[in-house]
Amino acid sequence: MMIKEKIQQAAQILAECGLGCWITFTRETEINGDPILPFLAPGPLTWHSAFIVTPDGRARAIVGRYDRAAVEETGAYDEVHDFVASFREPFLACLRALDPASIAVNYSEGSEICDGLTHGMFLTLQGLLGELGMADRLVSAEPVVSALRERKSAGELASMREAIRHAQEIFHLVQAQIVPGRTEREIAAFMQSEVRRRGLTFAWHPDTCPSVFTGPDTAEAHYSPTARAVEPGHLVTMDFGVRVDGYCSDLQRTFYVARPGETSLPEAVRRGFDTLRRAIEAAKAVLRPGAQGVEADAAARRTLLAAGYEEYPFGLGHQVGRFAHDGTALLGPAWAKYAGKPFRPLEAGMVFTIEPRLSVPGHGIVSIEEMVLVTAAGAEWLSDPQVELPLLEWAD
Amino acid sequence: MMIKEKIQQAAQILAECGLGCWITFTRETEINGDPILPFLAPGPLTWHSAFIVTPDGRARAIVGRYDRAAVEETGAYDEVHDFVASFREPFLACLRALDPASIAVNYSEGSEICDGLTHGMFLTLQGLLGELGMADRLVSAEPVVSALRERKSAGELASMREAIRHAQEIFHLVQAQIVPGRTEREIAAFMQSEVRRRGLTFAWHPDTCPSVFTGPDTAEAHYSPTARAVEPGHLVTMDFGVRVDGYCSDLQRTFYVARPGETSLPEAVRRGFDTLRRAIEAAKAVLRPGAQGVEADAAARRTLLAAGYEEYPFGLGHQVGRFAHDGTALLGPAWAKYAGKPFRPLEAGMVFTIEPRLSVPGHGIVSIEEMVLVTAAGAEWLSDPQVELPLLEWAD
Repeated sequence: MMIKEKIQQAAQILAECGLGCWITFTRETEINGDPILPFLAPGPLTWHSAFIVTPDGRARAIVGRYDRAAVEETGAYDEVHDFVASFREPFLACLRALDPASIAVNYSEGSEICDGLTHGMFLTLQGLLGELGMADRLVSAEPVVSALRERKSAGELASMREAIRHAQEIFHLVQAQIVPGRTEREIAAFMQSEVRRRGLTFAWHPDTCPSVFTGPDTAEAHYSPTARAVEPGHLVTMDFGVRVDGYCSDLQRTFYVARPGETSLPEAVRRGFDTLRRAIEAAKAVLRPGAQGVEADAAARRTLLAAGYEEYPFGLGHQVGRFAHDGTALLGPAWAKYAGKPFRPLEAGMVFTIEPRLSVPGHGIVSIEEMVLVTAAGAEWLSDPQVELPLLEWAD
Repeated sequence: MMIKEKIQQAAQILAECGLGCWITFTRETEINGDPILPFLAPGPLTWHSAFIVTPDGRARAIVGRYDRAAVEETGAYDEVHDFVASFREPFLACLRALDPASIAVNYSEGSEICDGLTHGMFLTLQGLLGELGMADRLVSAEPVVSALRERKSAGELASMREAIRHAQEIFHLVQAQIVPGRTEREIAAFMQSEVRRRGLTFAWHPDTCPSVFTGPDTAEAHYSPTARAVEPGHLVTMDFGVRVDGYCSDLQRTFYVARPGETSLPEAVRRGFDTLRRAIEAAKAVLRPGAQGVEADAAARRTLLAAGYEEYPFGLGHQVGRFAHDGTALLGPAWAKYAGKPFRPLEAGMVFTIEPRLSVPGHGIVSIEEMVLVTAAGAEWLSDPQVELPLLEWAD
C-alpha cells in the first residue's frame, strides 16, 4: 500500500519536474542497498533489478526470477518482467518501448540520501543505454528522490508521531536513573531495555542510541556512553530516538543533578538553558515554505553568539524520516561540506530537527533537540518542547 | 584488532597488485554504507570520510570531528585528520603529500561486493583529484577488495565454523517439528526462536531466513514461508544461516516425511537425493587453487542433466563471509549477469557454498547446500555434509 502510494507520488513529481522517467537500478541489496528501496520493493533483491516510473503514473519492474512473486504482490507495478541469465534483454526492450526524453537515476554529489546508485552500476547503465543511443539522457534524480522523501504523507507523519511519543516516554522514565554514581553506560542500558521491552528498534546504530554525556569535559557527540559516573552539579544530556513502522524520532533532552542542598538551578546553568531555548524559538520562527535552512541556522547561531556562547560546530537541524538523517534540505550554515543543502527552499510536509548546543563551564553541556513540521502557515512542534530544565534532587 | 590485521593484509595486496594507494570514500554510512567499512572503521561515519592505505603498510583516515576519537582508538591508523567545515583541505593535503601513481577506489561492474562507492561520491572524488591533476589515476579497487574479503584469516574461519555449528544444531532440532499439519511459517518461527535464544542474528533478511518449502508446487526460492502445511509424502527443504561475530553460515537441508506405513524412501526420492549428492561431490572434486568456478558448476550441472533432471536456474555456489553472498569469484555458469565471476582463478582461503537443486515430481524439491574451504590441496568440508535423507516417521 505504501509502495503504491509512493509510486503515484513519484509520478506526480516527475511530471512537475518535466522528467521522462525515473529508474532505480540495483543488485544484491543486502550488500549495497539504495536507500530509496523501501519505497519501491517489498524486501531484498538479489540479481540486477530496475524499477521504472513514468510521469503518466505507470510503473514497471525488471527483477530476477526469484524476486518476481514478491514484487508482483505489492500490486504497485503495471508490468513485472523477470529473467534468469541476463538482465540486458528485458531492460533494453522496456527502454526501447518507452523512449523517454530524459532518464533520472539516483546519484547526487550534494545529497547522500539521493545517492544510492553505485558507480559500477552507473557504468553498467550507461553501457546499456549507449546501445540504444540514450546514454546522454541520464540525469540526476535528486529532485525526485528529495521530494518523495521530504513531502511526508499523513501515514508517514502518524508513524513519526508514535516514534516521538515513545522516545519522550522513555526520556520521562529515565529521569529516575539519573543519580550520582550511575554511569553513562548504565543510563543507556536502561533506555535500550525500554526500547526492547516495547518491541521497537533504534533510530540509529545502538552504539550511540542513546548517547549519554554527564558533566564537563565529556567525549564529544557521536561517542558511545562511557563508564563516567553522574556527579552532583552535572548537566546530563542524551541523544536518542526509536523507529516505528520504519520511521524515526531523533530528540535530545538535558537534566541537571542538584548538589546537596541545592533547590534551584545555578545561575550559569539557568542562563545557558534559557539562551538555548531562545535559539530554538528563533530558528523555528524562521521556518515556512520558501524560506531557506541557512536563515534558521543563522537565527539560532546569532542568538548564542550574542549571549557570549561559542558557535556549535555542526548544522542546526536535519530532516527526519526513514533515517534519523533524511532528506536533502538542511538547517545549516554555508559550509563547503553541506554543498547546496542549506539553500534549498523549504516545503510544507518537511520534518526537521532543531538542535543547538552550548557549554556551561564546570557543569557540562546543554543540548536540546526538538522536531518540527513545516506547514503552509510556518512550523508546528511535533515533539513536546522541553521548556523546563529539571533539577533532579536525590536522597543523600 | 581485526581492523589493523585487515589493513596490513590490504597493504600486502596493494604491493602484489602494483597499486599506489587504496581509498575508501564514504559519508552518512547508516544511509549508504560501503560494504568494506567493517574492515576499516569501528562504527558509523557521518560526514565525508576517507580511509587511505598505501603498499608500505601505512594507513591514514580523514573523518569529521565527531568520528575522530572512535577511529583513533582502533590503533590501526598512523594518521587521523579531522575537520568541521570542509573535507577538501585535509584530503588534498594528504594526497598532495602521497602523490600515488595510481588510486584504487571501490567500484566494479562485475562484483557488487567491490562496488561500495556511489556515483555521486565518485564525481566528488574525481573533482577533488582533478584539482591536483590526479583524476586520471583513478582505477577500480576490485582486485584489492576481492582478495581482502576472499582470503580468510584463521580468526575469520573460526567465526564461520561457529556459525555453521549453530545452524547445523538448529537443523537437527527442527526435525521434531516436521510433522503433518505443521506449516512452513511455524517451522520457520521455531528456527528463528532458536536463533534468538542463542543470542545470534540472521545471516540474511529474516523474511526468508529460513526459507521453508514443503511438498510439490511450492513458491520458488527467495520467498517467505507460507501457511502451506506439511503432508505425508512431502520433501521439506530449508535455506538458513546465522551470523557469529559478523560472519555467516548459509546451508540447506532436505527431509522426507513418511506416508503411513512407509519405512523406506520412495525410489524417485532416493534417486533424486543420490543424484544431488553426486553432483555436490563432483563439484567439490574440481575445487583447487587455479581452477575456475565455471568448471565446478559444469561438473554439477552435467551430473544432473546426465541423470535426466532439469538444470538449476542459478549458479551452483557463491562465497560466504560477512555477507551470506560475499566475494567475487563464483561457482557459476557463463551467463551474462555473472560477468567475469565464474572465470576468476580460485585461491586458497576462499569459502564457497555448493548448492544444486532438483525436483522430484509429486514430492517436492531436493536442495542441499554445503560449505567448503579451498585449500592448497583442493577443498575441505566446513559443514558436515548431509549424506542421508532422513525419513521422518510420525505417530498417526
